[in-house]
Amino acid sequence: MTAFKNMSKEALAETKKNLQAEYDAYKAKNLSLNMARGIPSKAQLELSMGLLDSVNSSTDLTGINGADYRNYGILDGIPEAKKLFADLFNVTTDQIIVGGNSSLTLMFDTISSAMAHGLLGSTPWASLPEVKFLCPVPGYDRHFGITEYFGIQMIPVEMDENGPDMDFIENAVANDPYIKGIWCVPKYSNPAGITYSDEVVRRFANLKPAAKDFRIFWDNAYCIHHLFNDDVQLLDILEECRKAGNPNMVYMYFSTSKITFPGAGLAGMASSKENIDAIKKRMIVQSIGPDKINQLRHMKFLKNLDGLLEQMKKHADIIRPKFEVVDKTLTEGFGDSGIATWSKPNGGYFVSLNVEEGCAKRTVQLCKEAGVTLTNAGATYPYGKDPKDSNIRIAPTSPTVEELTEAMKILTVSAKLAAVEKLLG
Amino acid sequence: MTAFKNMSKEALAETKKNLQAEYDAYKAKNLSLNMARGIPSKAQLELSMGLLDSVNSSTDLTGINGADYRNYGILDGIPEAKKLFADLFNVTTDQIIVGGNSSLTLMFDTISSAMAHGLLGSTPWASLPEVKFLCPVPGYDRHFGITEYFGIQMIPVEMDENGPDMDFIENAVANDPYIKGIWCVPKYSNPAGITYSDEVVRRFANLKPAAKDFRIFWDNAYCIHHLFNDDVQLLDILEECRKAGNPNMVYMYFSTSKITFPGAGLAGMASSKENIDAIKKRMIVQSIGPDKINQLRHMKFLKNLDGLLEQMKKHADIIRPKFEVVDKTLTEGFGDSGIATWSKPNGGYFVSLNVEEGCAKRTVQLCKEAGVTLTNAGATYPYGKDPKDSNIRIAPTSPTVEELTEAMKILTVSAKLAAVEKLLG
Repeated sequence: MTAFKNMSKEALAETKKNLQAEYDAYKAKNLSLNMARGIPSKAQLELSMGLLDSVNSSTDLTGINGADYRNYGILDGIPEAKKLFADLFNVTTDQIIVGGNSSLTLMFDTISSAMAHGLLGSTPWASLPEVKFLCPVPGYDRHFGITEYFGIQMIPVEMDENGPDMDFIENAVANDPYIKGIWCVPKYSNPAGITYSDEVVRRFANLKPAAKDFRIFWDNAYCIHHLFNDDVQLLDILEECRKAGNPNMVYMYFSTSKITFPGAGLAGMASSKENIDAIKKRMIVQSIGPDKINQLRHMKFLKNLDGLLEQMKKHADIIRPKFEVVDKTLTEGFGDSGIATWSKPNGGYFVSLNVEEGCAKRTVQLCKEAGVTLTNAGATYPYGKDPKDSNIRIAPTSPTVEELTEAMKILTVSAKLAAVEKLLG
Repeated sequence: MTAFKNMSKEALAETKKNLQAEYDAYKAKNLSLNMARGIPSKAQLELSMGLLDSVNSSTDLTGINGADYRNYGILDGIPEAKKLFADLFNVTTDQIIVGGNSSLTLMFDTISSAMAHGLLGSTPWASLPEVKFLCPVPGYDRHFGITEYFGIQMIPVEMDENGPDMDFIENAVANDPYIKGIWCVPKYSNPAGITYSDEVVRRFANLKPAAKDFRIFWDNAYCIHHLFNDDVQLLDILEECRKAGNPNMVYMYFSTSKITFPGAGLAGMASSKENIDAIKKRMIVQSIGPDKINQLRHMKFLKNLDGLLEQMKKHADIIRPKFEVVDKTLTEGFGDSGIATWSKPNGGYFVSLNVEEGCAKRTVQLCKEAGVTLTNAGATYPYGKDPKDSNIRIAPTSPTVEELTEAMKILTVSAKLAAVEKLLG
């Protein structure tokens, strides 16, 4: 296959005819496959069925500190769960909150709190003439959804394989006091699968923001979600911030949504003690505390850090072949067409595909018409607007290998068809 | 015993000497009993141990609509749980959200949402020159805590045995567009145990507020928490608001915190479909949805409305004797002293005690020094300020009958001692 851009009009027209026939054949199959979100497969859910037995009516529900976990009390998570996540993130338990079932809710609430009350005594963001967030792209649509909901202006920041453009970020935060935050998925980023380099993390920790209440929203959603044994190491931002004299500059978020059961898992955050104490003061007004029984259920099932990592290996064994199928099918499907590039992540939940500029929306539409629902084109950019209309997020975990193979074939045909349509004008 | 106010100085001095001796004897026992909050006893918690077995690894976790409750999805509660609460509150399931574990969090979030975004298109409350809430007193300290946290000015409203002073409320909301809400515990109120009369509920439903976004925060925390079989009926505010042409004026909140396990239960809200739809739009940004497995656990344990009411009878059997002990001990302890009155509730979690004016703080302090921790005096009023320094909230459910008897004796002695101290000047 020749690169499309080197083809004559005639060759392109002929290619289009063949692609259209191929596409129509897929369409005739009347498939129905939803790959819009990064959700665990049935096989992954089966890994956690033991969670449902780990607490039962014979279980002693007295915590290590003597509290009855069936009753009221404990605002910031049971000590057992706080210890697990303190071990994982190399912090002390007073730097940890283990909350409800959704880290998204914790992030939303941090922003909501900053808007209405400010952070550590700062002016409430809602009282300022404007508030801006930096948004490394492509990024996570639900992050952008939160900042958009609160009327926070979003500024896209380019990324390369080492992370976001730190020159741009350093300059922006140093000069604009209305830049109050940045969304980061620092490990196996959503969707590009990038892990920030040590240098990037150090430069983050050493930022000199004009705004004292500038915060890095460090969504460590995929911190242990490796696909391979060669674990990619992410430098400890909390430690680096401490060393740099910026201990309060980062909020780290995590959850077990993709470790045990999404929705029935644990979510939490880690930060400086000062930040965590401030959040607890709000929680006293806001909450009766998390579901301690479900936290105990998790601790009895996962046991400790080793148990947690063991569980992640089982997940990796199930989803690794799916990522391999994606890479293989895209490699074969796009051949030498030269119209697409994609990530080969070492972990996380996504593959980031860049198709011919101006063709992402059309590709997603063609896929949908052939029965494959992908994440909306543009979703990986603030306001849903991909300036190049090129990025498509592939979420390979949920379908079976067979379904995924079929879906990726449809995707490559659709992307090629869209590219040829564009080149033919 | 003569009424204290009719006693001579000499008789009072003699009484004080005797009370002091009695008090000192209790103090010497070095008791330690915390009655600060309304929390279920161990015996009540035992009623729900079956909840821990109702879902296990052999359970089919497929919902009635085919969804896998182990995975992502469903924002507003599983259909089974929505139906239970729709049945209980006589509404349709699209008027119900079953959320996380805390109705307090739902209330906090409604206020937070109104402050930042307004309600159904109204001006965000935070953008107004002032925002006020009416607060029937004595009331629930955690309600007052939320409004205080958001800088909302609180206006106390007197209550009698039929509910709050509706003449005052009708006039206030009709004339002041900055009055945006009122906190109500309409059934077995916290702490007075009052159930609003039909007339009060109808007058609420027929309010003509100057503020279009005025809302009644109807915390139905004790809707089925009867102590006796003669169930006190509360008129259906949602139905009455609909009839009065004010369908969006009320948010009702509920939870199973005092039905199954506090913290590991379900919380929810009921309102007009328009209000619920608006909240769901926020939840799309804010949440990955509630813990569906815990909702299923509850449905398998409680089964249906009959099962729910059966569970409440078992609770009543455990706590009724405690309320009887409180009444008996207070009756005996205060005798004809004439310095105290208290409620005799038909349900709920509290007894409201009014001691001699100016003596509540001192009484609570004396109790604490004798090892009995009560809710802070003043807590039942906005800003913790009881203008008469008279009201004390008694939470009888947690201690055993024996502990409670001892605590109530200490309370009566302390209240009498405080009264005599005051009368002696």
